[in-house]
Amino acid sequence: MRTDVAIIGGGPSGLLLSQLLMREGISTVVLERRPRDHVLSRIRAGVLEWGTVDLLDRAGVGERMHREGLPHDGCYLTSGGRMIHIDFAEACGRRVMVYGQTEITRDLYAAQDAMGATILHGVEDVALHDLTGEAPFITFRHDGTTHRLDCRQIAGCDGFHGASRQAIPVEVRREFEKVYPFGWLGILSETPPACHELIYANHDRGFALASMRNPQLSRYYIQVPLTDRIEDWSDEAFWTELKRRLPAEVAGRMETGPSIEKSIAPLRSFVSEPMQWGQLFLCGDAAHIVPPTGAKGLNLAASDVFYLSRALIARYRSGDGSLLDRYGQDALARVWQAMRFSWSMTMMLHRFPDQAEFDRRMQLIELEGLARSPVARRALAENYTGLPY
Amino acid sequence: MRTDVAIIGGGPSGLLLSQLLMREGISTVVLERRPRDHVLSRIRAGVLEWGTVDLLDRAGVGERMHREGLPHDGCYLTSGGRMIHIDFAEACGRRVMVYGQTEITRDLYAAQDAMGATILHGVEDVALHDLTGEAPFITFRHDGTTHRLDCRQIAGCDGFHGASRQAIPVEVRREFEKVYPFGWLGILSETPPACHELIYANHDRGFALASMRNPQLSRYYIQVPLTDRIEDWSDEAFWTELKRRLPAEVAGRMETGPSIEKSIAPLRSFVSEPMQWGQLFLCGDAAHIVPPTGAKGLNLAASDVFYLSRALIARYRSGDGSLLDRYGQDALARVWQAMRFSWSMTMMLHRFPDQAEFDRRMQLIELEGLARSPVARRALAENYTGLPY
Repeated sequence: MRTDVAIIGGGPSGLLLSQLLMREGISTVVLERRPRDHVLSRIRAGVLEWGTVDLLDRAGVGERMHREGLPHDGCYLTSGGRMIHIDFAEACGRRVMVYGQTEITRDLYAAQDAMGATILHGVEDVALHDLTGEAPFITFRHDGTTHRLDCRQIAGCDGFHGASRQAIPVEVRREFEKVYPFGWLGILSETPPACHELIYANHDRGFALASMRNPQLSRYYIQVPLTDRIEDWSDEAFWTELKRRLPAEVAGRMETGPSIEKSIAPLRSFVSEPMQWGQLFLCGDAAHIVPPTGAKGLNLAASDVFYLSRALIARYRSGDGSLLDRYGQDALARVWQAMRFSWSMTMMLHRFPDQAEFDRRMQLIELEGLARSPVARRALAENYTGLPY
Repeated sequence: MRTDVAIIGGGPSGLLLSQLLMREGISTVVLERRPRDHVLSRIRAGVLEWGTVDLLDRAGVGERMHREGLPHDGCYLTSGGRMIHIDFAEACGRRVMVYGQTEITRDLYAAQDAMGATILHGVEDVALHDLTGEAPFITFRHDGTTHRLDCRQIAGCDGFHGASRQAIPVEVRREFEKVYPFGWLGILSETPPACHELIYANHDRGFALASMRNPQLSRYYIQVPLTDRIEDWSDEAFWTELKRRLPAEVAGRMETGPSIEKSIAPLRSFVSEPMQWGQLFLCGDAAHIVPPTGAKGLNLAASDVFYLSRALIARYRSGDGSLLDRYGQDALARVWQAMRFSWSMTMMLHRFPDQAEFDRRMQLIELEGLARSPVARRALAENYTGLPY
């Protein structure tokens, strides 16, 4: 098998990259370990920066998003019972779009199918070869046979546990990591959202987030100790705890119902440098993980895809490889700013075990500063709605 | 002895309060433990917010400050060898004044002497009585005799180790503290400053600060382990280490010379609540300590004096005690914002023992964000030049 760009991973970043490249006449093959049904069942991010929205439009997959997605012009932070509104439009003239990752993936599959894309599912034993040579290739097992895929470039879009990052020699890689001492217990519930905008709640009992996927599908989270297990949390216990952490005016009007999905996720910040090695280019979770506070995960994957697609298109169109040579550098500059934002939001909003009273007060004063200072709100809004590419 | 307002502590906050009150016809007595020479020999802060400048003007002691002080329209932060300019005027339209605390104290003594102020030096065994009653008083020893000073209000301007804060019952007090795991080794040197503005340096070897008192008097600091002693640091060793931590272009043109003062100071954040108790009102270091990063110590003392003088003047002029009742609340709101600023500057600029690589990178990315984002620079400038009263 032969293609221009081999893409490892058929999640949103791999599919979006394939879509953007194919529209420019660059051939791709997408290799995905899981069945399509599994990829489409994953509940992940739901808040899109406007740059991500624009990129999806450019890929020709924005039509349903604009019809069904919910543009948000702000969000709330709470400190105890007090609600602090961050007005994105007023603060920085931008907005975000609430539209689930699951829906984006569905739209991307539909578009890729329509273009006759080659997407192989159930691919195993992926190995990357000759990355620093002129003729890189991938070997993998599929349908009981070992295959070889020759290509000019490889995009590693296969997530944190994928093979791509590991293909960069360990002595070259530099990894940065912070593991937070708590997790998020999240549920999905077929109820109308408690508030028309997202609420990030700092409460003495711990963080909570009121989010949504659409007008009939709510997504709620509460901070829990890492030792908690799903079985410890009945739906009723979840709703009770969630309501305690949200302002009374929100809790009072909240509709509850059975959870249709419930899970506990750990929180981690992680970056692996470099993001490129020879003809291998990493995108998204393969190179970096953010805690979900601030909704940067999918958006960073999209920004990597922006830089990589732009660089590859320049390379194939005009033979100019200069953007490709500095892909990692361009992508990482933006990645690190978003890492810092996610980290600072996480540090500001959660309760930490054995937190000193001074440190706790610093969180509350930071929130107070946001309530008081238009400049502080603007700095948050610029990061939340997405720094320019 | 009898007076309207008894002021414990003859440092800049006590003297400034006395000066502001006397100009309104309110009588004061200032009690100071040390001789005047000692108070005037203390080397402390040197950067004044413009609100502090205005308050000194209002107290009638600004004449020499405006003649000899150095208005600064910006400062530099450095990250490795890179200099990031924070243009205060561009960012927020304000500036700061470089004028040493020693000079302010000298000006205040001169003004107080001219007004015939009662300032007792060498006062010992200060004790506060009946703070929550109608007739508070102070007892103290002076010139070998025990005295009683009756008054209507007591201002506790006697610093961190003074008696005032301790006079608030321990069960009422709530204390917040953070001790940083390093100190500042500082020298004063009769050399022209290396740069016309202050330089806050983040360097792999540790923090450094290039500051000044006047065009012929430089003030430099380097972060050192708390275990270091003054005897470990010759002048030569200091200059060598300082130059390593500053950008080459600054180090190259730096004039060195013998130190005329050299000391190591620990860094601490501390707040004691409440700041008032009955007829006792705390000002400055008696209630709170900031690390010197960001130069907020003297400015917070001045802002406390602003709120307290305003409240006392209203009380004496019109009998309206409402501002006095909420003095602590008004002062603390501003104190906490400055605590957070000093803490965040300290956290961003120093090397921490056993600092994780991720946390180190977060510091560098925050500095990178300041270099990139006008909003980030504006937020810093607003805090540095001083939030409005």
